[in-house]
Amino acid sequence: MGDLAIRPSAEDDIPALVAMLADDPLGAQRESPDDMSPYLTAFERLTADPNQHLVVAVRDDRVVGTLQLTIVPGLSRRGSTRSIIEGVRVHADERGSGLGTQLIEWAIDESRRQGCQLVQLTSDKTRTDAHRFYERLGFSASHTGFKLQL
Amino acid sequence: MGDLAIRPSAEDDIPALVAMLADDPLGAQRESPDDMSPYLTAFERLTADPNQHLVVAVRDDRVVGTLQLTIVPGLSRRGSTRSIIEGVRVHADERGSGLGTQLIEWAIDESRRQGCQLVQLTSDKTRTDAHRFYERLGFSASHTGFKLQL
Repeated sequence: MGDLAIRPSAEDDIPALVAMLADDPLGAQRESPDDMSPYLTAFERLTADPNQHLVVAVRDDRVVGTLQLTIVPGLSRRGSTRSIIEGVRVHADERGSGLGTQLIEWAIDESRRQGCQLVQLTSDKTRTDAHRFYERLGFSASHTGFKLQL
Repeated sequence: MGDLAIRPSAEDDIPALVAMLADDPLGAQRESPDDMSPYLTAFERLTADPNQHLVVAVRDDRVVGTLQLTIVPGLSRRGSTRSIIEGVRVHADERGSGLGTQLIEWAIDESRRQGCQLVQLTSDKTRTDAHRFYERLGFSASHTGFKLQL
């Protein structure tokens, strides 16, 4: 396998990104890979926000992974800035290659670089393999994550 | 009791905000109400970010509650924008008054107004009363929340 690069996403990456979001037990019901328009609108909103970092992992000119890092300043914990990781996906061909670890380590390093004191994420309770993965990387499953659909 | 107003926080509110953050079983160990400087720096960073909404609830000219709402655009779920609630606090004198509900309902309404399709938050696993509260308001405890201190 060729070298891996993690870089900011570009508009041309969107079809590959959406295909990865949809190729997932939960994502399959939530995404619409046949209609790119809502994703293009969202991409514009994302790139206009300097605290959003949507990155892609690229190997041999193919998009093989992605995550979104959000920087959140705040008052609590003595004015700590935290980061939030969302939308972690690794292409089916790359599972077991260590790419998930490289993506999360990139997010941790970037969070440090941005002055964050805390990195957080939530993972659906059904993704038990992912939970072991995050605990191996040093995360603590200290919280319950609540969601409300509008 | 007088009428309640929920409004954007101002720099003058910071001492009252920090006192509420510290008056909490978990916050007591994490905050430094005797040193405002890290909070003032964080407040500047917060107010410079148009996707951050740190609000206070005020009754009879006293700050009695707070929360922070962050708007996070994203690609997943057909380009959904989500909001994240952090740092919910209700003054000890106001507990049981319905103020917590009013704050969360404010956050849900504001999330709708900003075009969000999802509201999410995490709560420490030890805060079991808070968990019942969020479930009564319609939130689903569908996720595990992971944190990593840097």
